[in-house]
Amino acid sequence: MKNEDTICAIATAPGGAIGLIRVSGPDAITLTDRIFTPAGPGSVPLAERKPYTLTFGHIKNAEGEIIDEVLVSIFHAPHSYTGEDSTEISCHGSPYILQQVMQLLIGNGCRAAGPGEYTQRAFLNGKMDLSQAEAVADLIASTSAATHRLAMNQMRGGFSKELGKLRDQLLHLTSLMELELDFSDHEELEFADRTELQTLASQIETLIARLTDSFGTGNALKNGIPVAIIGETNAGKSTLLNTLVGEERAIVSDIHGTTRDVIEDTINLGGATFRFIDTAGIRNTTDTIETLGIERSFQVIKRADIVLWVIDQTEAEKQIADLSDKVIPLCEGKQLILIFNKSDLNTFSASIGTIGFPEGTQSICLSAKCKEGIDRLQSLLIEAAHLPAISASDVIVTNVRHYEALTRALEAIRRVQEGLSIGLSGDLVSQDLRECIFHLSDIVGEVTTDMVLQSIFTHFCVGK
Amino acid sequence: MKNEDTICAIATAPGGAIGLIRVSGPDAITLTDRIFTPAGPGSVPLAERKPYTLTFGHIKNAEGEIIDEVLVSIFHAPHSYTGEDSTEISCHGSPYILQQVMQLLIGNGCRAAGPGEYTQRAFLNGKMDLSQAEAVADLIASTSAATHRLAMNQMRGGFSKELGKLRDQLLHLTSLMELELDFSDHEELEFADRTELQTLASQIETLIARLTDSFGTGNALKNGIPVAIIGETNAGKSTLLNTLVGEERAIVSDIHGTTRDVIEDTINLGGATFRFIDTAGIRNTTDTIETLGIERSFQVIKRADIVLWVIDQTEAEKQIADLSDKVIPLCEGKQLILIFNKSDLNTFSASIGTIGFPEGTQSICLSAKCKEGIDRLQSLLIEAAHLPAISASDVIVTNVRHYEALTRALEAIRRVQEGLSIGLSGDLVSQDLRECIFHLSDIVGEVTTDMVLQSIFTHFCVGK
Repeated sequence: MKNEDTICAIATAPGGAIGLIRVSGPDAITLTDRIFTPAGPGSVPLAERKPYTLTFGHIKNAEGEIIDEVLVSIFHAPHSYTGEDSTEISCHGSPYILQQVMQLLIGNGCRAAGPGEYTQRAFLNGKMDLSQAEAVADLIASTSAATHRLAMNQMRGGFSKELGKLRDQLLHLTSLMELELDFSDHEELEFADRTELQTLASQIETLIARLTDSFGTGNALKNGIPVAIIGETNAGKSTLLNTLVGEERAIVSDIHGTTRDVIEDTINLGGATFRFIDTAGIRNTTDTIETLGIERSFQVIKRADIVLWVIDQTEAEKQIADLSDKVIPLCEGKQLILIFNKSDLNTFSASIGTIGFPEGTQSICLSAKCKEGIDRLQSLLIEAAHLPAISASDVIVTNVRHYEALTRALEAIRRVQEGLSIGLSGDLVSQDLRECIFHLSDIVGEVTTDMVLQSIFTHFCVGK
Repeated sequence: MKNEDTICAIATAPGGAIGLIRVSGPDAITLTDRIFTPAGPGSVPLAERKPYTLTFGHIKNAEGEIIDEVLVSIFHAPHSYTGEDSTEISCHGSPYILQQVMQLLIGNGCRAAGPGEYTQRAFLNGKMDLSQAEAVADLIASTSAATHRLAMNQMRGGFSKELGKLRDQLLHLTSLMELELDFSDHEELEFADRTELQTLASQIETLIARLTDSFGTGNALKNGIPVAIIGETNAGKSTLLNTLVGEERAIVSDIHGTTRDVIEDTINLGGATFRFIDTAGIRNTTDTIETLGIERSFQVIKRADIVLWVIDQTEAEKQIADLSDKVIPLCEGKQLILIFNKSDLNTFSASIGTIGFPEGTQSICLSAKCKEGIDRLQSLLIEAAHLPAISASDVIVTNVRHYEALTRALEAIRRVQEGLSIGLSGDLVSQDLRECIFHLSDIVGEVTTDMVLQSIFTHFCVGK
């Protein structure tokens, strides 16, 4: 698993006062020594210095010209982030200087690191498992207390520990099953009571199902609660979106380098993130509703947890009549909020409410244009989100890969339960058990089969 | 001069893998200890650790929740950048985490640092003089080998050393003058030969003038060589500018946080930066040249070192006839390059040259639209720049403040020369000398009058 080459990369974003270059690999320290001259007379090279120390000095090019005055940190394997010998070169944050130092390192035998290669090496060197490594990216991308807490817990092994417990139970179950198989040829003895095995499988199924279910919350926290804004184009949908997103958009855009590929319109309210799904407006021209527009809005409603239906209150009855037959059935199981917009234009006191709408439907009267009533809409959104409070020790699945692996593990354990209940032979049930373990181990990136065997021997110890 | 408070700031740009927070001041280490828990059992606090070491551990909030896993560097006064006790906290590069750590530091008694406050403290604590401090900003903003070299030399005290030498000579001259004054009441003796003083003053004047003159080169290197693109609007001026700037513009825009307030259209060619001055096109409508447009272009020519005159070669004779009387006189002392554009449209072989133009005028035939001949234009620009090669030890003034101070110092030393030649009394000449020293000392940020006195005593030592 050991890496033969030494990698280097700029670890800071361009533009700050300080820029950091990381070097990691077997030759990290000697390669850094080639371009670095410690300050002060009689200074010893980095290779002779202690780990976890800082050395002030100069980076010089081949001509002996000073490129920068820097501080170099030294780390010895395995006590570094990657588990390898490493250095960190703290330079002035000039893009020119950082490029020069990178070129010098590469010219002396370093390779420019690929994305995530330091964390990949940390995983390969056993400094963290795969789910912990994945949490590092989430941690860097975290923008709220809840996402930070989840990523930190996962990076510190909270999720891995939970999976470890599960795997121990599965291995125990497997060892009981496989023991039965080993001796089934020459003995009529049944080692484990099938009812006991069923109870064990059922406990495991409950645990996996709980983790799988947590993905709904985890995904909403990580990616935001999907909110659809629907309504006819003249109802003020775009104005409402702009008013809601407002300055927040600029804040989100300022955060570079996060793992999000596309920056959607999101806002943070009461610790939760709301993600507004881009909706095609429903065009109501010459009293004919465009079918295409409705269809597109309907797709959006399906993907949303919360539906904001924007209605122009100066023609509320007509707009509701136009769409309610189509919209209301699609909002089942979702939070529907009716927004009677353009309160600034309304010269009469409209009788606005939720009569005729499903129970739980909320309504609000506001003016998106004049920014009146937006506070109350924000309160309604926070209420509608009803996300649980996350404590630092909660294990919540936020990663799609983990969710998929857990879903497959859940299917496998359910097949085990079924197999046990219909009296399927031990070797067939054992196959499903192994598959369940395989999917869980996939999450932490472990090789599984050796472990299953090892666990059997540990539990059994027949001495043969 | 000592700062009583402890400051903190995020020293890296948002978006990288790593984010660095700097803490500096008398309580930097104890304040960091309040929010930091070293990893491992029996770990000692930062206050008991050695300087120039790194400690791995956790930043925790008041509730004991882990905000991040970090590395903390320790520096003891005066061996730090600021000359104060300092720590650097290396966090995961999440804007959320960095804000949380900042809040914790501020909650525990730190103050958020103002812009440049670390370097300001380094200056106040005598770690560097003012011109060196100013070079730090230039170094961070440097985008080419030449600007980097100049800033590095200045930061490392090359300029200060040159000024120091000058000041020593001035102080020697002053002490000779003031000695004369002290004893002028009761003795008829003239201590220094006036001719000797004049020679000394002339040498100093030469040195200051050389530095003042270097600003032309320094400014061109730092801010780019000013290039005016003139011509009638249909000649293809904008297309040429876009073709020249091309991808370069994106590269410049990517560098955030540099000291430049406005990003102009600049390109780097052959190690030199060319800055294209925004020119108002000369509109030639219905054969009448807009006077205003011409006037604006003329202003631009005055500010430029190089003038690119873009001419539509399909109507070259007419365009030259329209403007040459006005343009040619303004280009005296500047490099004029005639660009016969739209070579793609020219179906006949035009007789294009520089006949009738001043000696040294260059001409080129190209198509900005088809990007043909751009290479040759770039070569002409590099040739026209004729900047001297800068070595790491060259002292070149790049800072307007320094240039202004040097100009005032030059005026003062010239008054000294004049005073000496017309036999002005010692005390009047001495005033001009003091002013010259004052302006030079202003560059490095020193208090001057004490020093003049001290120098007199050192040189004289009459024991009175």
